[in-house]
Parts: sequence; C-alpha cells; structure tokens
Amino acid sequence: MTMHKDNFADKLLLKVIEKKSACVVGLDPLINLFPKLIVSELFKGNHQKQRDMIAETITNFNCQIIDAIYDIVPAVKPQSAFYEVFGFPGIRALEETCKYAKDKGLLVILDAKRNDIGSTAEAYTKAYLNSENPFGMDVDSLTVSGYLGSDGINPFVKSCEQFGKGMFVLVKTSNPSSQEVQDLRTANESKIYEILAQRVKEWGSVCVGSRGYSSVGAVVGATFPDTLQLLRKIMSQTIFLVPGYGAQGGTADTIRHAFNPDGQGAVISASRSVLYAFRSEKWSKHFNEEEFAQAARAEVENMREKINQVRSKV
Amino acid sequence: MTMHKDNFADKLLLKVIEKKSACVVGLDPLINLFPKLIVSELFKGNHQKQRDMIAETITNFNCQIIDAIYDIVPAVKPQSAFYEVFGFPGIRALEETCKYAKDKGLLVILDAKRNDIGSTAEAYTKAYLNSENPFGMDVDSLTVSGYLGSDGINPFVKSCEQFGKGMFVLVKTSNPSSQEVQDLRTANESKIYEILAQRVKEWGSVCVGSRGYSSVGAVVGATFPDTLQLLRKIMSQTIFLVPGYGAQGGTADTIRHAFNPDGQGAVISASRSVLYAFRSEKWSKHFNEEEFAQAARAEVENMREKINQVRSKV
Repeated sequence: MTMHKDNFADKLLLKVIEKKSACVVGLDPLINLFPKLIVSELFKGNHQKQRDMIAETITNFNCQIIDAIYDIVPAVKPQSAFYEVFGFPGIRALEETCKYAKDKGLLVILDAKRNDIGSTAEAYTKAYLNSENPFGMDVDSLTVSGYLGSDGINPFVKSCEQFGKGMFVLVKTSNPSSQEVQDLRTANESKIYEILAQRVKEWGSVCVGSRGYSSVGAVVGATFPDTLQLLRKIMSQTIFLVPGYGAQGGTADTIRHAFNPDGQGAVISASRSVLYAFRSEKWSKHFNEEEFAQAARAEVENMREKINQVRSKV
Repeated sequence: MTMHKDNFADKLLLKVIEKKSACVVGLDPLINLFPKLIVSELFKGNHQKQRDMIAETITNFNCQIIDAIYDIVPAVKPQSAFYEVFGFPGIRALEETCKYAKDKGLLVILDAKRNDIGSTAEAYTKAYLNSENPFGMDVDSLTVSGYLGSDGINPFVKSCEQFGKGMFVLVKTSNPSSQEVQDLRTANESKIYEILAQRVKEWGSVCVGSRGYSSVGAVVGATFPDTLQLLRKIMSQTIFLVPGYGAQGGTADTIRHAFNPDGQGAVISASRSVLYAFRSEKWSKHFNEEEFAQAARAEVENMREKINQVRSKV
C-alpha cells in the first residue's frame, strides 16, 4: 500500500492557518429549533410528503449556514445521529450537506463515533473514508471509539494512509459521567484515557504529515481543562477535536491547553450555540429569524476571536 | 414516565422458547458473496441505475433469507455498517428489511454500536428505539457502547422502559485485541469488562421483566469461554448477545457458559456462516446457488441443534 499524497492533518492545519480559525461548526439539524421560514412548508403535508421534504429542508438550512461561515472555519462537523433520526431521507440530507461543504472548500469531519471489528470496521471505512466507493459518503475524517482495541482502529488507519483521510479517536469525552469508565485508574497507575492517549499516539505514528501532526487525532472534551493539559503532553503530535464549547460549558479559557505552544494542534467545535444563535439572548437583539445565518456567522466570528486570543498566548 | 406494558427481555425469551432456538441470524449483506441470480441485474446499468437498484437487491436477498429461517430463530441482527456502505439507498434497504422481519414475527436487534451523550444519544434513541417517531426505524433492540458512561446509556434505558425496547451494551467483544482496553486491570483488581458488567447490571435493574431478565443486555463474544463463565456469574439477570459463532471461531462448546442453568439468558449470533452457507464446503455439496436460502436454513438448523444440546446440559 502506498501512502496517499495528501495528508489529512496537513490539509486541516493549512486551512486553520489560511482562515485564521481553529473553529469547527457542528451541523446538528434540530428541526424544532430551525427558523420558521425554513420549516414552514415541511409541516403542511401528509406523512409521505413530509418525509419527501425532510432531506430538502435540512439541506437547505445547512447550505445557508455553510454559505455564511465557509470562509471563517476550516471544517464542519455533522453529527450523524441528527440525520439518522429521519431515516434514509436524513442520510440523503447528510450526503448532500457533506458534498456542498466540500465544494465550498471545507473539510468534513463526520461525528459518528463508529466502532466495530474486522470486516465490519472495513465496511465503515468504505462507507465514510474511501474515495473509491462510488456509493460512499467520502468525508475527510470520522470520529471512532477505541474500546474494541486495535482490531477496531487499524482499518480506519489504513484508510487514513491510503486515501489521505483522518480520524479522531474518543479519548476523554466532555460529559460529566465520562469519568465512570475513562477515568478508572489501572493497576499501573495510569487512567484509561491516558492509556488510550498512548495508543492514539502509536496508532497515529504511521501518518504524521509534513507539519508534524498525525491524521489520527483524539477527541478530548472542552470541559476538563487539567485533563486537556495532561493529554496535550502525552499526545504532542495529535490534533485534538474539542467538543463541548458553548452549550456544554467549555470556554476559551477551559480549552487554551488544547493547543501546543505553536498555537496549533486543536480544533474547537461548537454546534447549537452557532446554528441557533438567532435564538440566544446575545444575538436575538441584533438578528431576526430570517437572519439566522448571519447570526451564526456573528457567533463564529466571536468564538474565533476569543480562541485566537488564547492560541497566541499558549 | 410509565413503564411500557411490553418488556423486550420477556418478548425475546418467549420467542426463544416457542421456536426452541437461541440462534440469531446476522443480516450482513456482502454483495460480492450474494448468489449470481440476485445481483445479475445490479451490475448491468450505469452508476445511477445501480444506486437505484441497491436497496431492491439487498432487500430481495434479505427477504428470501428471512422467509427461509423466520420460524426457527427468535430474532435477526442486521449490522448497520453493511448498509451504510451504500449510502442512503443502503439505509432504505435496512428499513425495509427491518419492517419485513417484524411482519414475519421476528424481533430485530440492530447492531450499530451507537454511543454518544445527552441530546445526541436521545437522537439515536429516536432514530432506532422510539415507536412514536414517524421517521424512525423502530427496531426492537440496539447495540451500544458504554465508554462514555451513564450519560451515554441512560437515554437508551429510558427508551427500553418507555417503549418496551431492548439494548445490548458492549462488555467483552469477540476480537483478539479486545483485551487491549477491556481486559485492563484497575487498581481495585477488577478488569474493565468486569466493571462494565457491574454497570450493565445496575443500568438494567429498572427493566427486569416477568421472566427475571432485564431488557438491558450485554454483548459478550463467543471466543473467550472463561470470560463468558465469569460474566455469567456477575450478570445473572442479563441476556447475553453472543457474536463470534461460526466464522470467528466460536463453537457450541465455547458458548455453553453463556447460558444460565435454566438454559436461558443468551442468544448466539452467526452471520456469514448462515447467509453464505451455499458457498461453504459443508453445504455446497447439497445446495446450488439458487438454493442459497435453503442452505442458510440448513446451517441454522444445524447450529440450533448444537446449541440446544449444550443449553440442556448447562
């Protein structure tokens, strides 16, 4: 197997530099939070008509968001669950959204937390990280779980090498109960997330790009600043995907240690605080519902500035 | 929230008794292994035509398998990855397959190993375990990962209670490298999979049915007989979903300890050894390609008998 000429880590970091932005926007379509003008047609028809219109409605919302933010973010991160909830029309919307984002020069990180072994893991790589599958989604990167060990990781690493793709392995998630399993201390004193971090470093050693970072990244939540700092030391060449900014309580201050001293090495993700900014106290004064995309842009600009301030001071 | 009148564990165990079978057939469509007569039309057209025909081709294969085995298995277990690989037409086939299986009186366990937190986990429950979502798949049970802790499990447990659904939490998987994380020994001497087992027991305590088993089950691989025995003791009220029989090396002998002394408490899953039995040395002598469904039935009958022998001797 020859290494692909492109390297996902290189591509992502270049876009972070070009756009002066380490912000990733999570595309989590929650129809109940959509502006009225987007859904007004949707709830009129019967079940079959609604089903037919779902893909169109979600894609319409996402494309307007993408149009408003594509020049100030390196990547978008659709969360698969919010599309799966609508059955195959939802998946159609996800495919169309990913295609539109890529056409706009964005990288697409699909947040699907897939995990399986052997031929099943290979099927997932074919579904999402294989440029030669004519029926696949062909995104740039995928979140995966490492609970199954190397058997569940190696097929994805192979896609990273072969097709210039990326992946982010769950190491320490942003939710309060993440400590129940991830913070368990093993007999040799390391916590589970530290052991996963060590493995991520090893798994990723085969696809370190010319900028010094690996295409095998790690998911590390924004809500545990001390852990972020510790994990940054263990995984110096690993790009962190940091969810939990905004709605979950992460701030520019809690995520500063996700970055290396060069101000690189992490992308920070926010979803609802951006997509539905027009509903927030902060932005509803400035934008009405029709201006939901401008409100999203304003929130991303705000987030970008705050994050760039802490990046320059790491 | 009121408890649903149905309980998944009760429903599953009743079907095991009625059909005298603890065998579950994994519906993993691998088009390259399909009989020629099923795919002959598929590869003729252009890309768009192929795409249109995928759902039909996969559904056709699955329905013929279901017709051949529905009276001798309690449930089928489609593996989501093998449908996702074909994009939204694949998901359409999955939906149609699940509906067909349910119409034939089978329970559907969707093997998707989903895992996420908060509103995202809720979206997954709406996608798969919510009878009130008009766009959802509404299967009977879902496999999930517990790496994220209770936040990632509770929304699914709620669906078990509210809609009479089931779930199987990954505890010890059948692959060789499962030991890398799952077998790590913690400071208190327990292994990670033992701790997960303890948690599964706790999570499941709220939905124990009248037959004494919980709707919150556990995935425990067929390939580690000693571990199966140990986990059976920790989780006496938990139904085990045991993959790894057949193609992965599990046998009636390695899985005997998945059962409680009453011969209940486990379902054993096989996929490729059943679906593509017509290609095996054992069955290709007796069945030609056109008889792929009869070959699948013969393999299930064989498996059922072997498993029933060890069930009666636990």
